[in-house]
Amino acid sequence: MKIYSYSDLSKQEIESICLRQLEDDITIQDRVKSIVDAVKTDGDKALFNFAKQFDQVELAQLFIDKKEIEEIAASIPSEAKAAIDTAYQNIKTFHAAQAKKEEKIETMPGVTCWRETRAIDRVGLYIPGGSAVLPSTFLMLGIPATLAGCKEIVVCSPPQKDGKTNCYLAYCALKLGIEKIYLVGGAQAVAAMAYGTESVPKVYKIFGPGNRYVTQAKQLIQSTTMTAIDMPAGPSEVLVLADETANPSYLASDLLAQAEHGADSQTILVSTSNEIITKTLEQVEIQLKELPRKDVTALAIANSYTVLVKDLEQGMEFSNTYAPEHLILSTEHFEKLIPLIANAGSVFLGNLTPESAGDYASGTNHTLPTSGFAKAYSGVSLDSFVKKITFQHISPKGLENIGSTVEVLAEAEGLRAHRNAVSIRLKNN
Amino acid sequence: MKIYSYSDLSKQEIESICLRQLEDDITIQDRVKSIVDAVKTDGDKALFNFAKQFDQVELAQLFIDKKEIEEIAASIPSEAKAAIDTAYQNIKTFHAAQAKKEEKIETMPGVTCWRETRAIDRVGLYIPGGSAVLPSTFLMLGIPATLAGCKEIVVCSPPQKDGKTNCYLAYCALKLGIEKIYLVGGAQAVAAMAYGTESVPKVYKIFGPGNRYVTQAKQLIQSTTMTAIDMPAGPSEVLVLADETANPSYLASDLLAQAEHGADSQTILVSTSNEIITKTLEQVEIQLKELPRKDVTALAIANSYTVLVKDLEQGMEFSNTYAPEHLILSTEHFEKLIPLIANAGSVFLGNLTPESAGDYASGTNHTLPTSGFAKAYSGVSLDSFVKKITFQHISPKGLENIGSTVEVLAEAEGLRAHRNAVSIRLKNN
Repeated sequence: MKIYSYSDLSKQEIESICLRQLEDDITIQDRVKSIVDAVKTDGDKALFNFAKQFDQVELAQLFIDKKEIEEIAASIPSEAKAAIDTAYQNIKTFHAAQAKKEEKIETMPGVTCWRETRAIDRVGLYIPGGSAVLPSTFLMLGIPATLAGCKEIVVCSPPQKDGKTNCYLAYCALKLGIEKIYLVGGAQAVAAMAYGTESVPKVYKIFGPGNRYVTQAKQLIQSTTMTAIDMPAGPSEVLVLADETANPSYLASDLLAQAEHGADSQTILVSTSNEIITKTLEQVEIQLKELPRKDVTALAIANSYTVLVKDLEQGMEFSNTYAPEHLILSTEHFEKLIPLIANAGSVFLGNLTPESAGDYASGTNHTLPTSGFAKAYSGVSLDSFVKKITFQHISPKGLENIGSTVEVLAEAEGLRAHRNAVSIRLKNN
Repeated sequence: MKIYSYSDLSKQEIESICLRQLEDDITIQDRVKSIVDAVKTDGDKALFNFAKQFDQVELAQLFIDKKEIEEIAASIPSEAKAAIDTAYQNIKTFHAAQAKKEEKIETMPGVTCWRETRAIDRVGLYIPGGSAVLPSTFLMLGIPATLAGCKEIVVCSPPQKDGKTNCYLAYCALKLGIEKIYLVGGAQAVAAMAYGTESVPKVYKIFGPGNRYVTQAKQLIQSTTMTAIDMPAGPSEVLVLADETANPSYLASDLLAQAEHGADSQTILVSTSNEIITKTLEQVEIQLKELPRKDVTALAIANSYTVLVKDLEQGMEFSNTYAPEHLILSTEHFEKLIPLIANAGSVFLGNLTPESAGDYASGTNHTLPTSGFAKAYSGVSLDSFVKKITFQHISPKGLENIGSTVEVLAEAEGLRAHRNAVSIRLKNN
């Protein structure tokens, strides 16, 4: 890992090390477009073909139903079942607290305004299932979707080798009350949910992480159809800010947890202490050796870097410029840093709060803005599954109070009919 | 206006009359791309050229500063000043109430999670100023941006014939404490805010309505840069649901107010009463004659339609399928309809609440999802100018409680390093 000293870096150099590459691989874009077009044109037929081509599975039908879900879920090991139950409860508790009824506001006497929340009727959840099957993602998307009251929750996940889904996903479906899992993966799943096919219902918003094909497909359907997406996505990343109160072996474990996601993951250590940096890099080497995914993890570590800063405040300055998906504050002095945080997806406070706790079970959502998108986007929450509709009611008194204001502004904008809509009511009032 | 009877329509026909055309004019896409590319490459120089080409103005500099804003604002008529003051106050009152501090949630003993709100540091507001200058849009975007605490608020609006801005916008800037207005319009304004130029700062999120070029440019930069946008946009629209308690001349005034926005505006009257429909259409003809924008208004009216329904509930069913930007419930029985509303941008309740009240001054935001996007998107609010960052803190006790859950789930997903990040802390705990 390269070591930078913050004070030696120019503004341009800082910007340059904060830069993440946006996907602009034309080959991938073209392949995704042809997959999406095929699904749009051929529907289910295209999905069966892609299952054969990409998942090496000859499917008899494109989904498993409630009965099969129950059968598969029954085989879950009891330890995993208990873990999913605990994670489910924590995630549900945290997201349920995000539902707020807003009060009515009388902006002027007789003019009453408020917002009400309505679920997005049809949502699509993409649950990756290629190199790793991710029950945690199913919980992170399925729990707020059910809490929000989305009427139709379409779940797509690539078929396993046996043409089914695995026991973890099946158990999550059972807990969430979701009665079908569509065995469709990749860009073709995104296309199916955006356009609808004979089997897969069309949805209004698509959620979920995925590989470069899934991400490209989401971008494409966002700009060409009426379908919304949760957020743009890039490779996962962590920035760990540590001072001398941190524990190097904990720091190393956090960096490696991020790095094992893939060679393009970014793991950044920012520290006030040269000694902490040195010891952490030693620990990284030691812990790395024992990992099953050590090859890919080593690649990600090699592409990452550390930054030496003069104090925690300077570290926060760098973190805000980088805008990390995950920010770990490995210091006993985390409290004073919270107000300084401007851009981050999710924040892990203190030495006993590893990112993996939030990935699975603390309760916060793990679907978060990557690539610097944390400057403008929030992670997924209950809000992501609802719309907030504004309401207004004007009484006779209110019309008197607000009438001339509307008339004058409409006239100033040259919109006479807008003015008339008030004038005609004022006349009869 | 064409009159449909809901009961006679097939599901396909209903879907078809609800369909809005997405922009897919290749000529516009190509022109927008070349404008955006020019700004990306040539910066200010391109902006000066486009001002000459599109706005017929030779600019000396690309913005007016605080001093000029104050001078121009001084010429605002006192009636308009008072109207802007009232609108400002109402909009501010309603949006300020949207700021909520969320409490900390202990999802399990020792595991504490919460969200905190942070402003998006740099936002860009596009204020149209071609055929009509829109001070109301400046208020609708500027008020939540300042309430949220956005540090840099970049405002672009096309130059007027004198190479300046008009007194309404200048006065809004003054009220909002905004010290510069960039004299840049159209797709070039969007490009300038997305890429930054010598004069115009780069922002993280761009807001505001505009013509087809502005809309296309926003879509383009959303899919090719790190810049977020408020929402996709299409022509404005209203759906008025009326029963026999409605007033035909009010209804006509509401339809015409929507129609005067442009020939592509959609105005839809849904009613339980044939008599109301007939009388309203008569009133439309009468009121239309007096309008300064009657030609364009007549075109929009000609492209619109009415739907006869058997009761208000059936009307709501149609409205939810259509998902209107503006929904006016012109009935004394609006209360019972509120729970039935699933998809709409903003709702106007009763016979004395015209849409134009919300366009200007009731307090709600007028930047709303069009074209059916109300199925997945909310209008602009304070939320649009902030991110919500999640936080979590785990105590020694919390680590004991959550540890094995994380370990088991990480192992189930094949992510050993994720497991280690917890195990290593549990060992020392």
